[in-house]
Amino acid sequence: MPNISPAPSFDTVQDAYRRLEGVVVKTPLLESPALNEKLGARLLLKCEALQKTGSFKFRGAYNAISSLTEEQRQNGVFAFSSGNHAQGMAYAAKILGCKATILMPEDTPRIKLDNTRGYGATVVTYDRYSESREEIGEKIAKEQNLTLIRPYDNVQVISGQGTCGIEIADQLKEKEVTADILAAPCGGGGLMSGISLAFAELSPATDLYVAEPKNFDDTARSLSAGTKKSNSGDHRSICDAIVTPTPGDITFPVLHDLTEGGLVVSDAEVADAMRTAFQYFKVVIEPGGSVALAAFLSGKIDINGKTAVAVASGGNVDADLYTKVLLGEI
Amino acid sequence: MPNISPAPSFDTVQDAYRRLEGVVVKTPLLESPALNEKLGARLLLKCEALQKTGSFKFRGAYNAISSLTEEQRQNGVFAFSSGNHAQGMAYAAKILGCKATILMPEDTPRIKLDNTRGYGATVVTYDRYSESREEIGEKIAKEQNLTLIRPYDNVQVISGQGTCGIEIADQLKEKEVTADILAAPCGGGGLMSGISLAFAELSPATDLYVAEPKNFDDTARSLSAGTKKSNSGDHRSICDAIVTPTPGDITFPVLHDLTEGGLVVSDAEVADAMRTAFQYFKVVIEPGGSVALAAFLSGKIDINGKTAVAVASGGNVDADLYTKVLLGEI
Repeated sequence: MPNISPAPSFDTVQDAYRRLEGVVVKTPLLESPALNEKLGARLLLKCEALQKTGSFKFRGAYNAISSLTEEQRQNGVFAFSSGNHAQGMAYAAKILGCKATILMPEDTPRIKLDNTRGYGATVVTYDRYSESREEIGEKIAKEQNLTLIRPYDNVQVISGQGTCGIEIADQLKEKEVTADILAAPCGGGGLMSGISLAFAELSPATDLYVAEPKNFDDTARSLSAGTKKSNSGDHRSICDAIVTPTPGDITFPVLHDLTEGGLVVSDAEVADAMRTAFQYFKVVIEPGGSVALAAFLSGKIDINGKTAVAVASGGNVDADLYTKVLLGEI
Repeated sequence: MPNISPAPSFDTVQDAYRRLEGVVVKTPLLESPALNEKLGARLLLKCEALQKTGSFKFRGAYNAISSLTEEQRQNGVFAFSSGNHAQGMAYAAKILGCKATILMPEDTPRIKLDNTRGYGATVVTYDRYSESREEIGEKIAKEQNLTLIRPYDNVQVISGQGTCGIEIADQLKEKEVTADILAAPCGGGGLMSGISLAFAELSPATDLYVAEPKNFDDTARSLSAGTKKSNSGDHRSICDAIVTPTPGDITFPVLHDLTEGGLVVSDAEVADAMRTAFQYFKVVIEPGGSVALAAFLSGKIDINGKTAVAVASGGNVDADLYTKVLLGEI
């Protein structure tokens, strides 16, 4: 039996940190003096776009697969994902010598589909607006005896994502500064629940916020209500990575306990944040990865005179969308 | 009197390294497993686009200004630059409480002009194709009693740029790998002469190459001939950062002693490298900063089965040029 804890905790995040050491990239905590001056704040960008596979998802995927039994690994793993978990899973599986099958929305950015196949995974597509990925996923996994690794409702995945939080806390310590505020993009909440577990222990004075796109603010509304709320299915957003319907069963209680609430941004504010990342940080951030930065830049919370960390969770964006953003067409 | 050595050496680079510690960003040495697999090589990208002011130039500028006498600093500094040295100087001067006046080509990318002014420097422009920046520069510096900090023919500037080489050597050591080849973009040769001094001491087994744009391959031809050659003035390149006419008097002997030669790439190969950096590394590299990567990707030297380091020296590119590159129009 694999050693799987019943709930994620600072201990499981620390275990993941040890497991991932030397495997994941310790991504930089970037800072732009020019932007700081413009904002009247100290803004630090944790750049997970520079992580292996272009997003933080590799952390949780690697931690989850390496926590499986030898038999489970030999049978193979299965994942459903809007793209970044897919790539993280495909590459982690490849490194760990394990077959991966991935269910992806058919309108996933081409770069994510291509990369997932490029890492050797088998890709199956579905319509994200009319079909339930959970139902299709469980069916395929069962039929082929694959172990389903959920993108966020999985203790080892959450713990892996939490290693990003330990790194940020270390990097803040190196800079001899305490963050007043930290915000991270939130789909199902895996990244932010992991970071929250790390920060509750390592930087309890920091106020934590999830950031979401307009019309996909299920977590913000759930945190306000104190109970899980869902999004309706008739909206679109450029933030393909984080348009999940509702918070996770494992992630929500953690977020409810440890965060202050949610910040919600429009696609236009996201595009502006992507342009800012281009100009001031020289990094390519995908729409869903830019929502936390967008929340700070658009004043959804006042960071004036403060030290604020925005997690930029991924950089897998197609060139055609990126050029539209740079040209101000979005 | 400031302690200025007559020639740059590993000692002066080490002095700079100590002076810059905690001031410069230790920029990441990025790697893409997917690109490595595609190339059949281990390609490492030293990402100086993530340096303060968006290029390596901040290193040399800070080292040079902090090596001046108190009186010189109070009178102010002067620089001529195609843009990145300008920004590096402007920001370093600001930090060190010193007035900066900068002479820039009138066709400099707007982002570089705006940023230089944004750091509080006074900007004067000239026509790079018809006027001599050296003559104008010396005249202004003399009239206003400013200390001219040359962009590459300055021992403290070269030594500052060399700190990038010490970092790369450290990062290779952490990865427990020796680089077979390293290439860096070359305008006047300040960056590569500094790196060469570091690598001659710390990684003597690595073959070093300068990379240049077609028609601006003065250093490649000079290294072949064993004596300084110049470019003619009637060509254009998208690599605005490195279209210098001839190698420096201080840099050339260092490059001649320590490098293997030069690699020359077309604008189309540069654009392809910029797209590769976007897709695989998620970093924005400017044209001049991409020539070393372009040389590897276009097979100007065979890196198959080898470990190769490309220095990406800067990321200050206007959005309109960048979108043209992403759309394949260049």
